[in-house]
Amino acid sequence: MTPTITAFERSPDGGKGLPRDMRVRWALEEVGQPYDVRLLSFEAMKQPTHLALHPFGQIPTYEEGDLALFESGAIVFHIAERHAGLLPEEPNARARAITWMFAALNTVEPPIFDRALTIILERDQPWYAQRLRALEGSIRERLDALSRHLGDHDWLDGAFSAGDLLMLSVLLRLKGSEILEEYPKLSAYVARGEARPAYKRAFAAQLAVFTAASARP
Amino acid sequence: MTPTITAFERSPDGGKGLPRDMRVRWALEEVGQPYDVRLLSFEAMKQPTHLALHPFGQIPTYEEGDLALFESGAIVFHIAERHAGLLPEEPNARARAITWMFAALNTVEPPIFDRALTIILERDQPWYAQRLRALEGSIRERLDALSRHLGDHDWLDGAFSAGDLLMLSVLLRLKGSEILEEYPKLSAYVARGEARPAYKRAFAAQLAVFTAASARP
Repeated sequence: MTPTITAFERSPDGGKGLPRDMRVRWALEEVGQPYDVRLLSFEAMKQPTHLALHPFGQIPTYEEGDLALFESGAIVFHIAERHAGLLPEEPNARARAITWMFAALNTVEPPIFDRALTIILERDQPWYAQRLRALEGSIRERLDALSRHLGDHDWLDGAFSAGDLLMLSVLLRLKGSEILEEYPKLSAYVARGEARPAYKRAFAAQLAVFTAASARP
Repeated sequence: MTPTITAFERSPDGGKGLPRDMRVRWALEEVGQPYDVRLLSFEAMKQPTHLALHPFGQIPTYEEGDLALFESGAIVFHIAERHAGLLPEEPNARARAITWMFAALNTVEPPIFDRALTIILERDQPWYAQRLRALEGSIRERLDALSRHLGDHDWLDGAFSAGDLLMLSVLLRLKGSEILEEYPKLSAYVARGEARPAYKRAFAAQLAVFTAASARP
């Protein structure tokens, strides 16, 4: 059964692939699972029909028969559990890959996401410079640790996994920030992620949505 | 094999059960799995021995034979996968419970944790009141959605699950903030969590560590 995911009708990032549907598209491409996309306006995301699928009124959601899920991390995990290619079979390696999924979303993403929001929402506030500096300090703490752990390995723990997919998705938000460029090992890691054919197909698919939306009046 | 977890030697919250080892203790108590605890000073957390277990130098970690994990969400999931009681067996219900685990950590926790940090670190800043108001606005958006979803149900999706355990752990940080009290359904939900015998045992265990540490010079 072909699953249906939701995505922004008109992504606020201009097609850079930062919204969280990208993670789900990428996971589906990695495992070779075709999918349908239902596009939503910001208004539609707050309507009862969508809130019944996603209590927090966000994207992405994932529908497959009588199963409906939200939260990109949970959707990526669901895909990884049901298809080969995103989680190792050996139980300990599998548990460690899942650990990296949670580390991406609960330890590394919060300050990176906060920084992006701060830049959009607090640029004119008197505390902007100081707050940005504090957030970037927190981000560097995480990146120091991550870079030390990664070392000269290609991926976080053995073969590419859903843990890498989520960690890379989180790090991609730092592209062009100069912070990522301070970490050559992490920059190379991000480049390895972007070079994956599945990533490229997912990126092209989300960009095509934005390009089509921009062409409309 | 009895697993070993790590926790703060002297918890900065004064034994209120807010550090993330509490989630792991609670999960282990729910499934009836005995565990050992290794206590760490803040200095020890940043030493190579601990960094080899936890790249970000935090607690908790989880060691069981040759398996070593970090990230409370991943550890709770590991426990829930291997013991009955924290995840439903029916595949769709299980996927939904996992969705709530990710929702707790990636959607609801970040603004709640930020608020706690802001209160500690930014109290003397000129922007403190305005920043706190903004964060509390984000928290209320999440709690509005969560309360609407919960309605008059006892738990987030059918029986108590690891999704509830993590969501309740996140909400408990709001106790005494007056924000939680604006949501009677969520306050009752938190009270139901605190009334669980497994929660009480885990709480008593972490408090005993703090009490013993305080008794030392």
